[in-house]
Amino acid sequence: MPVPPRAIVLLSGGLDSATAAAIGRSEGFDLYALTVAYGQRHGCEIESARAVARALGVVRHVELQVDLSAFGGSALTDAIEVPKDRDLEASDIPSTYVPARNTVFLALALAWAETLGAQDIYIGVNALDYSGYPDCRPEFVEAFERLAGLATKAGVEGARLRIHAPLMRMTKAEIIRRGLALGVDYGLTHSCYDPDASGRPCGHCDSCLLRAKGFAEAGVRDPVF
Amino acid sequence: MPVPPRAIVLLSGGLDSATAAAIGRSEGFDLYALTVAYGQRHGCEIESARAVARALGVVRHVELQVDLSAFGGSALTDAIEVPKDRDLEASDIPSTYVPARNTVFLALALAWAETLGAQDIYIGVNALDYSGYPDCRPEFVEAFERLAGLATKAGVEGARLRIHAPLMRMTKAEIIRRGLALGVDYGLTHSCYDPDASGRPCGHCDSCLLRAKGFAEAGVRDPVF
Repeated sequence: MPVPPRAIVLLSGGLDSATAAAIGRSEGFDLYALTVAYGQRHGCEIESARAVARALGVVRHVELQVDLSAFGGSALTDAIEVPKDRDLEASDIPSTYVPARNTVFLALALAWAETLGAQDIYIGVNALDYSGYPDCRPEFVEAFERLAGLATKAGVEGARLRIHAPLMRMTKAEIIRRGLALGVDYGLTHSCYDPDASGRPCGHCDSCLLRAKGFAEAGVRDPVF
Repeated sequence: MPVPPRAIVLLSGGLDSATAAAIGRSEGFDLYALTVAYGQRHGCEIESARAVARALGVVRHVELQVDLSAFGGSALTDAIEVPKDRDLEASDIPSTYVPARNTVFLALALAWAETLGAQDIYIGVNALDYSGYPDCRPEFVEAFERLAGLATKAGVEGARLRIHAPLMRMTKAEIIRRGLALGVDYGLTHSCYDPDASGRPCGHCDSCLLRAKGFAEAGVRDPVF
């Protein structure tokens, strides 16, 4: 039996990355999950990432500390208030944006991919039901893929490095339906930017609002509530 | 008097990054120095980075821990032997290559730049007297600059993010002459990949050989020896 190819999957503990990982597995990859602890206030994400990694049967799960709060500048890492009940159609980039976060995450995933000899990276970014972050758009993912080919020994030697963003054009409801079809247990995931001390979601931040909208449109009950 | 613009400079503690930083300062920037402790065996680099940052009068120096040795795969982070007295004209990529290192460094610098409102990043990569690493070539730096414009709020809003690699086309001797003209104290820098316990350079790794060649060609005594 041939050995399955390896893929790195960026696993935050949220709904999107759990689904992207399940898609990667369904596409025939052995999964190597990377969770970056970047100083986020919602640290219970990390525990969810562990539970999701276990449920997915990943080969290895690396948790890497990278304290982006040393730079400051985001409601997710600083003492800035997380906005509540925001208009999700608003075109501005909200204060929850973490500068260059997905660039940092993909760079770290690329480092691991090259070490493992993997040519595939999965990331759960989405350009439809999202908060308007610049590093969630298809042109960003394409530019990173191009960079990856130039940045690495494998790329120089002719390998094609691929950044898979399978959720890019899906609505939140489509993501949830796809994940359920692949057996994702969304009860293990955590989405809220501003949970209480016991990890209970606030229900009012962008991430809670998008999640609620997705489950409502999918016609499914969110197991977390 | 107008406030000088800000630039992030990646400062390793080595000769090249100290020179790139001095060039950035001479080009009118207030410097914000970023040193990444990535699990390198030659930890005395970090102490050199501190001394260089002080000597340059940087506004702030951030040391960030990012343990790339969690991924393995390089003689600089693992128990793999550092090659000695290697032919510097050889075309292969040596075992001291750290997968995707400069991609990770630039991603972190970009995160800080965006937080500070800086549009300029200095990196001391060099494509002449170097070890053949893929992420030291001009096409890599150009691809990262393109990515930076797409990855960030500033880029989306029309700012031009610039990755400055002022040493790209310089020989090691030219770098040293330029640095000396700008007042760089190379006695503070550390280049060796495999120093002894007291921090003394081995004299035989790629980095020591390139440094020795540079000082010899510049006709200057290396203050470290």
